Amino acid sequence: MSRSEYTVDYELSDDDENVHNVWDNSLDPAVTVEPGEVVRFECRDALDGQVTQDSTADDLANASFDPVHPLTGPVAVEGAEPGDVLAVDLLDFEHKGWGFTGYMPGEMGLGLLPEDFEEAGLHIWDLGEETAEFVNGIEIPLDMFPGIIGVAPGESGEHDTLPPRATGGNMDVKHMTAGSTVYLPVEAEGGLFSTADCHAAQGDGEVCVTGVEAPMFVTARFDVRKDMNIEQPQFETDGPFTPTGQDERMYGTTGIDSDLMEATKKAVRHMIEHLHTERDLTRGEAYILCSAAVDLKISEVVDAPNWTVTAYLPESIFPDA
Amino acid sequence: MSRSEYTVDYELSDDDENVHNVWDNSLDPAVTVEPGEVVRFECRDALDGQVTQDSTADDLANASFDPVHPLTGPVAVEGAEPGDVLAVDLLDFEHKGWGFTGYMPGEMGLGLLPEDFEEAGLHIWDLGEETAEFVNGIEIPLDMFPGIIGVAPGESGEHDTLPPRATGGNMDVKHMTAGSTVYLPVEAEGGLFSTADCHAAQGDGEVCVTGVEAPMFVTARFDVRKDMNIEQPQFETDGPFTPTGQDERMYGTTGIDSDLMEATKKAVRHMIEHLHTERDLTRGEAYILCSAAVDLKISEVVDAPNWTVTAYLPESIFPDA
Repeated sequence: MSRSEYTVDYELSDDDENVHNVWDNSLDPAVTVEPGEVVRFECRDALDGQVTQDSTADDLANASFDPVHPLTGPVAVEGAEPGDVLAVDLLDFEHKGWGFTGYMPGEMGLGLLPEDFEEAGLHIWDLGEETAEFVNGIEIPLDMFPGIIGVAPGESGEHDTLPPRATGGNMDVKHMTAGSTVYLPVEAEGGLFSTADCHAAQGDGEVCVTGVEAPMFVTARFDVRKDMNIEQPQFETDGPFTPTGQDERMYGTTGIDSDLMEATKKAVRHMIEHLHTERDLTRGEAYILCSAAVDLKISEVVDAPNWTVTAYLPESIFPDA
Repeated sequence: MSRSEYTVDYELSDDDENVHNVWDNSLDPAVTVEPGEVVRFECRDALDGQVTQDSTADDLANASFDPVHPLTGPVAVEGAEPGDVLAVDLLDFEHKGWGFTGYMPGEMGLGLLPEDFEEAGLHIWDLGEETAEFVNGIEIPLDMFPGIIGVAPGESGEHDTLPPRATGGNMDVKHMTAGSTVYLPVEAEGGLFSTADCHAAQGDGEVCVTGVEAPMFVTARFDVRKDMNIEQPQFETDGPFTPTGQDERMYGTTGIDSDLMEATKKAVRHMIEHLHTERDLTRGEAYILCSAAVDLKISEVVDAPNWTVTAYLPESIFPDA
C-alpha cells in the first residue's frame, strides 16, 4: 500500500482529554483501534505553549518543565500483547506554520554544551512548505518527524518523558520521517502508543536540546507483529540523509577524545567555531543551527584509546551555495 | 581546479625507505614538496602483509601488531610552520584488487564487541571497479579512503599509530574520500604528513576494528593555510552519504543507554541480531558487514539520562533490493 492510500479512522485533538505528560500503563486509552487503522494526532509543542511566535529568549529561560512533554494518546491497539512488536507506519505530518529552537543553559544544565553559554537563546521560525529561514539568508530544509514515538513501559507507575527507553519515547531520531515504519517493543496490554515533541527539522544529536519545535499533526497506521522480537526500537526509513536528498558538499569537524561524550562535545564546539569564524554567526546562533541542521556520526569507536566523532554541515543551506 | 587536473610531482613507493610505523617529528622527510605539488603514495595494508588473499581467520588471529601501521611518508611541505594548517586535497585512490575485513576478539580486546565473539573471523574481498561481493549475494559499494591521514605531533618522541589525535592520524572518517580536502593542524616544521591504513569501504564506526583493509595508491596535493586556526582536523567532502549517492531505504536499529559507548554497542548488537535473524548471516558475518557497510549516528545526546545511537543498514546492498 502506498503512503497516500489511507483514510483516517480516528482523530485525536490536542484537548486535555487526549494529552498526558508521563508514561504510565494505567492510563485509559484515548482510543482503541484495530490493526490496520489510522489515527491522526494533534500534537502540542514540547513546551506546551509556553513559547509563542512572540516570545523572547527570556520567556524560554523562564519556562516551566512541569508540563514537558505533552503527549497525545494513548492509543491501544487490539491484540497487542507484551512481547509483541507494534509497527507504526508514519504516513503524514502537517505543521502549523511556525516553530522555535532555543537553548537554556546555566542551572538547568540542558543541552550538550550548557557550560559554554551563560544566557538563553531563541530563534522563532516561519515554516514554509519545504524550508525555513534562519539568519544571514540561511535556509534549512524541513524534515518533519515526532521526537517522541513510544508505548507505555511495562513497569507500573509514572515515568518521565525526557529520556528515551526500551519502549521508545523521546528518541529524537530524525529519520523517523513520513514513509518510515517504526517498530516498538510492546510491554503493556494494547501497547498504549503516544506521540509528541514534533520537530520540523533537527540535526542528529539535537545538541542545544531543541530541534525546530513545532506543534504538528501526525498521521500513523498501526499493526501488530507477533513474528518480531526486539529489545529496543527499530525502524525503516528513506531518509532524507542530506538536505537535497543526494550527495552534496559538507563541511566536517572532528572531535577526537578518549571519552565518546567528550569527543561529541569537541566535534560540536569545533563546528560552532567554524560557523562563527567562517559564516559570521554568533556562537549562540551557531549552536542553534547545529541543533537544527548539523548531523553527528561516530566515525570510529575502535582505535583505542581515542574515538572520532564527526559533525557534518551541509553547505547547501547557505545563500552562496 | 578540477580533481582530474593534476600531475604527480613525486611518487613514494611502499619500499622500506618510505615506510615508518610510529609518529615522530624527528624522522627525515621522504620528500620535501612545495605548496601545490602532488604526491602519489603507495600504501601497504594495515597489517603490513601478514594477511594475504589466501589467509584464514587463524592467520589473522595470530598476526603481530608490531608492524601496525606501516605509514608512507613523511612528506615535508615547504613553509608549513607550527600553528598553520596543512590542506590536503585527496585526488585519487587506486586499490590493488583485494582487501580483507576481520575481527580478533578475546585477549587482544580489539573492536567494539570483543566480549561477544570468542574466535576470529575473516572475509577476503575481491575488489571490483565499483563494488565488492560479500556472502549471500550481498554487494557493497567501494568508497575508498585512507584511515590514516595525519601530520607529526609537536611532542618529541615516538607516538603509537593506533589512536587518532589532534594532528589526525587514524581517524577512520569514511567521508575523507576522493574530492575531499582535509585540514590538519601543523605542530612540527614542514608538517611531516603520512598516510596509511587504506579502506576500500567502511561503515561509520569501523566496529569490528577493520574496514575493507586494502593496499592502495593515494594521490594528494598539499597546500599551507596561514589563515586558518583549528584545534583538531576538519574537512570538506561530497560524500557519498549513501551507497547510491541519493536517498534510499535503510533499516535502522537504536541503542538507548545512559552511557554513549554502551548505547553504541547496543545499536550494533541489535543490527547484528537483525542481520542474523532477517538476512541469514552468522553473527560473525554480520559483525564484519556492520564494520564494512553500516553507519552510526548519534541521534540525540541531550535527553538525559539516556542517549540514542542509531545504526543504519542500506537495503540496496542486498540482492533482493
